[in-house]
Amino acid sequence: MLKHSNLIEKCLESKSIFTGKLLHVLCDKVVLPNGRESTREYIKHPGASVVIPYLNDKRVLLIRQFRYPVNRVMIELPAGKIDPDESPENTIKRELEEETGYTSDNIINLCAIHTSVGYSDELLHLFWAYDLKACVKKPDYDENIELLPMNINDAMEMIYSGEITDAKSIIGLFWADKIINNRQFSKRVLK
Amino acid sequence: MLKHSNLIEKCLESKSIFTGKLLHVLCDKVVLPNGRESTREYIKHPGASVVIPYLNDKRVLLIRQFRYPVNRVMIELPAGKIDPDESPENTIKRELEEETGYTSDNIINLCAIHTSVGYSDELLHLFWAYDLKACVKKPDYDENIELLPMNINDAMEMIYSGEITDAKSIIGLFWADKIINNRQFSKRVLK
Repeated sequence: MLKHSNLIEKCLESKSIFTGKLLHVLCDKVVLPNGRESTREYIKHPGASVVIPYLNDKRVLLIRQFRYPVNRVMIELPAGKIDPDESPENTIKRELEEETGYTSDNIINLCAIHTSVGYSDELLHLFWAYDLKACVKKPDYDENIELLPMNINDAMEMIYSGEITDAKSIIGLFWADKIINNRQFSKRVLK
Repeated sequence: MLKHSNLIEKCLESKSIFTGKLLHVLCDKVVLPNGRESTREYIKHPGASVVIPYLNDKRVLLIRQFRYPVNRVMIELPAGKIDPDESPENTIKRELEEETGYTSDNIINLCAIHTSVGYSDELLHLFWAYDLKACVKKPDYDENIELLPMNINDAMEMIYSGEITDAKSIIGLFWADKIINNRQFSKRVLK
């Protein structure tokens, strides 16, 4: 069954524009529901995972890192791109260990998020991790990361005051706030 | 003052890879804090605005539209790219009118969001709009949009159940939930 078929655009021709180490850019010719034609430029992305690491002392483990595209130091939740043939859950276990030096066998999938539907097919998987154990941190050679464990209420204040602006981290922290501060919600999603 | 200068990467050489109607792709050679070199592929984006239209009947006005990059019909808040020489507030007034057929002179900026810091410099401005007035809807020729006014509690359920997956809309609805259901928070941010 094709729901909302009156809205759907169909591909006439797909053209690869650029394939780099990270980005794959395409430009497709499409036909609109009204029969007219248009083009759509977009990025093919392998998907990514992001995690809310909930420490045993009841703080959330954020990280601080420089992000070149926006030319600033960002406060974020740990995250990373999905490698070929990797599951989203294995991605986040690997990234958690690499970026923070913690491991967890208790990882719960909360939701999936489309980050930029206007120009990217990226799907981001959000996880909750608890019962964390310290191990050895091993970031990629081109990643410089500082740990920033934080009380959830302080982190929420940093969203409202504009200090935390990273979309995936804002979404993760809103979920964390509900899970940590609302017992009924927590029971429902961490079952 | 350079805060966290130990994290910062510097540009050695910037190369434009592709300039389309929508996307501008670059690949820069950078030097890392440890002196090693790497490359960064990313998109230059003009920025965008997104709005929570709060109807007089106390529902939030969502929209349904097809998004080619993810090949699916999405439920979203109204949003659009900032035109050259346009302010984020004027963008959202224009998009609100074009996409929904409503205007508002009561628009409040809530926060700014970096949508995809790993590969885009896009900054998204989130607004709250109230005291909406119906006018004539006038979408772009290649936009097909259906209106979906919704109770905030129902919209939040669609986030938790995975029916709403668009990042900017999830963030906007979390803000809307706090504003609508928490009088103290509402007083603080809508002052």
